[in-house]
Amino acid sequence: MSAADAIDVIRLDGGDEVVVASRDIRLGETVSVPGRGRVEVRSSVPRGHKLAITPVSAGDTVSKYGVVIGVASADIKPGDHVHIHNLTMTDPESDYEFGTARRTLPVPEGRRPTFDGYRRADGKVGTRNYIGILTSVNCSAGTAKMIADQFRGSALDEYTHVDGVVALTHGSGCGLVSGSDGADVLTRTLRGYAAHPNMAGLLVLGLGCEMLQADRIVDPTTLPESTLIETMTIQETGGIRKTVRAGVAAIEKMLGPVNDLQRESVDVSELTLGLNCGGSDGYSGITANPALGVASDLLVAYGGTSILAETPEVFGAEQLLTRRAVSPEVGRKLLKRIEWWKEYAAAGGGSLDNNPSPGNKAGGLTTILEKSLGAIAKSGSAELVDVLAYAEPVTARGLHFMDTPGYDPVSVTGIVAGGANIVCFTTGRGSVLGCKPSPSIKLATNSDLYARMREDMDLNCGGIVDGSESVDEAGRRIFDCVLEVASGRRTVSEELDLGQDEFQPWQLGTVT
Amino acid sequence: MSAADAIDVIRLDGGDEVVVASRDIRLGETVSVPGRGRVEVRSSVPRGHKLAITPVSAGDTVSKYGVVIGVASADIKPGDHVHIHNLTMTDPESDYEFGTARRTLPVPEGRRPTFDGYRRADGKVGTRNYIGILTSVNCSAGTAKMIADQFRGSALDEYTHVDGVVALTHGSGCGLVSGSDGADVLTRTLRGYAAHPNMAGLLVLGLGCEMLQADRIVDPTTLPESTLIETMTIQETGGIRKTVRAGVAAIEKMLGPVNDLQRESVDVSELTLGLNCGGSDGYSGITANPALGVASDLLVAYGGTSILAETPEVFGAEQLLTRRAVSPEVGRKLLKRIEWWKEYAAAGGGSLDNNPSPGNKAGGLTTILEKSLGAIAKSGSAELVDVLAYAEPVTARGLHFMDTPGYDPVSVTGIVAGGANIVCFTTGRGSVLGCKPSPSIKLATNSDLYARMREDMDLNCGGIVDGSESVDEAGRRIFDCVLEVASGRRTVSEELDLGQDEFQPWQLGTVT
Ligand SMILES: [Ca+2]
Ligand SMILES: [Ca+2]
Ligand SMILES: [Ca+2]
Ligand SMILES: [Ca+2]
Ligand SMILES: [Ca+2]
Repeated sequence: MSAADAIDVIRLDGGDEVVVASRDIRLGETVSVPGRGRVEVRSSVPRGHKLAITPVSAGDTVSKYGVVIGVASADIKPGDHVHIHNLTMTDPESDYEFGTARRTLPVPEGRRPTFDGYRRADGKVGTRNYIGILTSVNCSAGTAKMIADQFRGSALDEYTHVDGVVALTHGSGCGLVSGSDGADVLTRTLRGYAAHPNMAGLLVLGLGCEMLQADRIVDPTTLPESTLIETMTIQETGGIRKTVRAGVAAIEKMLGPVNDLQRESVDVSELTLGLNCGGSDGYSGITANPALGVASDLLVAYGGTSILAETPEVFGAEQLLTRRAVSPEVGRKLLKRIEWWKEYAAAGGGSLDNNPSPGNKAGGLTTILEKSLGAIAKSGSAELVDVLAYAEPVTARGLHFMDTPGYDPVSVTGIVAGGANIVCFTTGRGSVLGCKPSPSIKLATNSDLYARMREDMDLNCGGIVDGSESVDEAGRRIFDCVLEVASGRRTVSEELDLGQDEFQPWQLGTVT
Repeated sequence: MSAADAIDVIRLDGGDEVVVASRDIRLGETVSVPGRGRVEVRSSVPRGHKLAITPVSAGDTVSKYGVVIGVASADIKPGDHVHIHNLTMTDPESDYEFGTARRTLPVPEGRRPTFDGYRRADGKVGTRNYIGILTSVNCSAGTAKMIADQFRGSALDEYTHVDGVVALTHGSGCGLVSGSDGADVLTRTLRGYAAHPNMAGLLVLGLGCEMLQADRIVDPTTLPESTLIETMTIQETGGIRKTVRAGVAAIEKMLGPVNDLQRESVDVSELTLGLNCGGSDGYSGITANPALGVASDLLVAYGGTSILAETPEVFGAEQLLTRRAVSPEVGRKLLKRIEWWKEYAAAGGGSLDNNPSPGNKAGGLTTILEKSLGAIAKSGSAELVDVLAYAEPVTARGLHFMDTPGYDPVSVTGIVAGGANIVCFTTGRGSVLGCKPSPSIKLATNSDLYARMREDMDLNCGGIVDGSESVDEAGRRIFDCVLEVASGRRTVSEELDLGQDEFQPWQLGTVT
């Protein structure tokens, strides 16, 4: 694409009064607005900032992403820069509505998409075929890694249907208050990974004297009957060397049966897509995130499932999610989590900011609502079916919200524990997150990053700002990529054998 | 040793009114008490319980470990079982004294012991010669492991003075509240490992966009000038593959210079001994812990340093440590930490128990003081020189207390960050903890464990209860073992290449 083709502005929704400048635009320039013709710019508009394309009277609302982001505090003319000088926020707290913006997405016409997955005994479908080593406590982490290391490299070459042996180790499992949130969250996370459809076999490995006993982590009644399980402790087995030998032998026994499993063609609705962003930049909210929202909406339209998360990053726009909630009860569940987070952040000496940071403002974000909209954009416009606790299993179809921190490994660990069998991760600065046993598709928000870290990115969404494709086109490309990866195409993080160290259950509460 | 030689009771201090039954003793038996002749037993005394060897009048104090553990609530005769029916606790809170039990340990006669260590540019002495990969954030953990993996197995065979390349990865580093306790604790821990005398070279590895920036972790002014340092981020280096190549090259460059370093004979006072226990049993407080206390006292007598930790496990006996404090200020520092822990435990829905658990009582522990005495026994009788925050650098000689949880990997990580160049770890159930870059000597509290997990234990203290050696003899054996290991003899956890996954900085506070 030549520089002459470069677009001037990005139109995020056909009904918006504003567009986003994709380059620094000078006073007096005439810019081309997709579907609107040319607009003369009446003030300089920095890259990422908003430019009015229709007149707005003082007191009228202004939309971006098809959503009201504030009220004009002065008359706005086409070509005006729209920012803190002429746009204010209405108080969101006075304004909670439940279900007023529900939208049933129409099923696209034509043949329903499918992917090739591993059907488990409980009816769930895996996109990968892993054997997991689940640890009850940090004290068995080193031993778990020793066992997993025996199956790295070429060790599994003859088992073409086995994606790997993953050691899920962590820093906790003892010194917890029994029955506390911290103990519950860890148990739920471990159980979620145990029951995950991408796990065909499990070795549950403990030390022996820990609080969280190995044989209590895995409740066989909640696992697919097809999952092969062995449980052992280092103390009962007689030390590390004996445990490594016994663990390797147990997994070797599983390899044949696990390798005999075959992918079969299944409906796209068997996908549960985890949504996340990390190392965000000024492009995240206008390229990769809304494009991922298009892909998520497509999946949900077909009856599939999507999981939005990262509560601190949604804060300030929660009233938009409550409007999309299927019931007041679901909407109130979200508001309850927001209240919990205000206390949790305050207890840690921080706060959930009510204002965008100076850096966000310089980047063109006028209100906290607008900033959080950029994060929520990953979830498209589907209605919100349920709000889940961290690592809580997803049991319905459609768009879910899971309460997690924004911090990437902790957030994605919760989402995968909840059942995500594929993850899409948008990044502007260059995250390299993997999340075994689920594949993570890395979406670059800009072409510079994509060029600089080509081996670590799966897909470039920078074309949206370069002018080579629309948000919708990028979204369809992401959707196609999701189907291919679900069917077995390896992501860059899988090629790099990443995604074991990113298993990071949220550590909540007291450690004694 | 034949069964006939089995001893009946353990005498923990020559001045104690009670001894501990090392087997179930029946009413009417006559048992042999070391240094006291034979005593006729007037009630059945289960193993681990206390037996009176002198008369005590109601209202008089009873001692164990040479320390008052309570007041007789009835007249006690020699041969009586001493427990909750005839022994009560005085209220410890009304009883804080500072420095009233200070004791300067006499320097043993004869030649001063030495060990062979690596002298660093700042004068500190390493017991090992490691290259560390320090990570600023979980997002660089996988890459750090890939780099370290290149130096495993036979890769370092020609570098006989290089003990290994250790990847110190963790789950945090972003999503923290800047300036919060959580961020401070992580930074202090990473800096402590960077400055550790067992580190000859450092690769500091970040992702690039994290809160805790890689180039801010390591303050060169606090490192020995001899430490070789390279810093890089994955984003600046252009992705994972390039970073692995660059990281491996940087470490390969360090190998020659690090391998050229030589051990030299240094005074025993250059040792900083970390004390810990985990997977404790009924023997811990009467065998391995007091024996380790003898070794710790010997080291302190020679001018060396020892670090007691695990605040929740000393709770209830803190008034004994304040009496050993060198100043009221040091004593009050400890009490302040105890207060902090009461709030922290309550905030997490738990509590620091004021009573021994039913299991502890069944095992013969009458009061919380007595239970905690078993943990404090690891620190011998030396005076308490200072109280440190988690991972705070030790700057003085003598016995220190560091505020850590009891949970093993978190506690030991703080102690090593503080500068411990060797660790002794007592265990009754069978902990397998390693703590690179410092060696950890595993002390079994009983001979059964030692036999069952022979390959995971360095030393057996079960002879104290089997009757083959005294607490003092076991302590001297531990001291000799410390000197040998400090000089390069490998521990069992080093033979097993353990101690990388146990790097677990205390995660405190809010994660956003
Ligand atoms: Ca984010
Ligand atoms: Ca994130
Ligand atoms: Ca070597
Ligand atoms: Ca303990
Ligand atoms: Ca411990």
